[in-house]
Amino acid sequence: MAPKKVTIVGSGNWGSAIARIVGQNAQQYPNLFDQTVNMWVFEEIVDGQKLSEIINTQHENVKYLPGKKLPENVVAVTDVVDSCKNSDILVFVIPHQFVPKVCNQLKGNLKSDAMAISLIKGLSVNPNGGIKLISEEIHEILNIEVSVLMGANLAHEVADEKFCEATIGTLDKKKDAEMWFKLFNTENFRINVVEDANTVELCGALKNVVACAAGFADGLKLGDNTKAALIRIGLMEIIKFIENFYPGARLETFLESCGVADLVTTCYGGRNRKICEAYVTSKKPLSEVEKELLNGQSAQGPLTAEEIYATLQSKNSVEKFPLFVAVHRICKGEVPADRLIECVRAN
Amino acid sequence: MAPKKVTIVGSGNWGSAIARIVGQNAQQYPNLFDQTVNMWVFEEIVDGQKLSEIINTQHENVKYLPGKKLPENVVAVTDVVDSCKNSDILVFVIPHQFVPKVCNQLKGNLKSDAMAISLIKGLSVNPNGGIKLISEEIHEILNIEVSVLMGANLAHEVADEKFCEATIGTLDKKKDAEMWFKLFNTENFRINVVEDANTVELCGALKNVVACAAGFADGLKLGDNTKAALIRIGLMEIIKFIENFYPGARLETFLESCGVADLVTTCYGGRNRKICEAYVTSKKPLSEVEKELLNGQSAQGPLTAEEIYATLQSKNSVEKFPLFVAVHRICKGEVPADRLIECVRAN
Repeated sequence: MAPKKVTIVGSGNWGSAIARIVGQNAQQYPNLFDQTVNMWVFEEIVDGQKLSEIINTQHENVKYLPGKKLPENVVAVTDVVDSCKNSDILVFVIPHQFVPKVCNQLKGNLKSDAMAISLIKGLSVNPNGGIKLISEEIHEILNIEVSVLMGANLAHEVADEKFCEATIGTLDKKKDAEMWFKLFNTENFRINVVEDANTVELCGALKNVVACAAGFADGLKLGDNTKAALIRIGLMEIIKFIENFYPGARLETFLESCGVADLVTTCYGGRNRKICEAYVTSKKPLSEVEKELLNGQSAQGPLTAEEIYATLQSKNSVEKFPLFVAVHRICKGEVPADRLIECVRAN
Repeated sequence: MAPKKVTIVGSGNWGSAIARIVGQNAQQYPNLFDQTVNMWVFEEIVDGQKLSEIINTQHENVKYLPGKKLPENVVAVTDVVDSCKNSDILVFVIPHQFVPKVCNQLKGNLKSDAMAISLIKGLSVNPNGGIKLISEEIHEILNIEVSVLMGANLAHEVADEKFCEATIGTLDKKKDAEMWFKLFNTENFRINVVEDANTVELCGALKNVVACAAGFADGLKLGDNTKAALIRIGLMEIIKFIENFYPGARLETFLESCGVADLVTTCYGGRNRKICEAYVTSKKPLSEVEKELLNGQSAQGPLTAEEIYATLQSKNSVEKFPLFVAVHRICKGEVPADRLIECVRAN
């Protein structure tokens, strides 16, 4: 088999951190991977110079991952179709709202046996009601197989080569597990491949809803026991949600990095926890708190809670997920935060 | 069936907090439980007055749970045999080093069909090598059935009636589950009963070893990703240890309060985390750090790690549990803490 050509579709903070790993691993396995790894860069001007040119000459994404060298075999390409048309493996790592546009540009311009892996956390809203996975969205437009990579992975810590773990979820483990492992695993970025893609992806999205509950608990000063109970009840709702609406989950998957590990870090350290704590203590509207604390970025948790709530309504399942529903209603201001426990207790 | 007589064997901080719940629930179910709940009190003098008399007149354990009233049907009894001889249910909640002495006093003085539940976290060392569960120790001396109650339960938060969860592990769920549930469950202390006693008890002991690793990670400033990875790898070693040496565990049990919830709180907030962080940052011996930070109390984690290490040696399994072994060796000063990741990576 010819070495596979890889493109990183995206070049933000996380995309650049993962490009360091992928570029290095491509060099390590020349029989498996083409020696040039493309990175699609949305062109912008940084200090009067094109970002793509800076990357290709200085081998550093000075805007989104300053101070960290990219391997020289990672090459910036500014046209998304050019960057992907000869590739066997597409690594999607763009903000989730850009997925439809980028995929529609790529449609009809890919190798017929190209494969994708999505590193994008979040959910898409189905125009017919309910939610859609990002991997489903990519698959629907491009009609290619889509695996996912999720885990407790803050981009700057991965770029610093701090020890961590990630989970790859595939549709058919036996076939491609070794390839995915070799493309992403390093001494400090430890990959486990499981044949349970939907679960891996949903854990990455749903954890943010639980982190909102953890943030409310912190803001209300409910104590360590209560916070632990809310995180656990949240995990049980994640499991129940997946078992109900994406059947076939293996319980072991929830014990992977994409499951408990990512959930725990997010509930103790993430931005959803932070804004929901501040929402309770400041008594300001959530949108205002977000603006003040996140520098114009938005937190996924409240959005995901809203999408999940719509799904639960359409499936007549609102009363089976009291924590998810309480998070949504508190974020919307329909229920005061100090009624959180009362809502969850109704379980 | 006659109402069952209950004795709380112990009256410390946790014993007094649980006596508030048990006393109240006995009142709520007069058909199930005798209206007087005994509490064995190791007599001491507080401000010139006997502690047992203070409890029986002021209904407050002014020494170990000041400021919280005990239900009036909880009666302090200072002779341990008198407190238990007519009881059907013994709730053990004493420091684990007192278990042999107390049980030997009770031996031959109990009703033949008495049952016990242990709320004691920790392990006992088997003189023949390896570890022994506290429930096994009680069972060996008294030859009665022993269930366990574990969870993310800081005594003062339970006493404050903050919402939390706990897990009861029984040998035979169907038989007594409802009774245990009614004895302990309240609106704010949510019980789940599982038929997996050994797993529930071992989670309560082994989590402290993982919390030491989390403390080292904090002291070394390894970051959020790494801490999450260590907690997850620790959970996997807990599962592997139980599957290897106490077979029959149900994976679901690790998702109960006794499992992930207690592990997480302990790794982010507990005393084992705290002393292990200080051990790294202060570079003082662990015993000195313990003395400075814990007011003469001791942390279970390093002791448990030592006992687990002895077990692993005797079973030729040292290399299968790199995190447990690393924690032991770091606590002993045999390996510097900054080699933690290197040890775990060898997995």
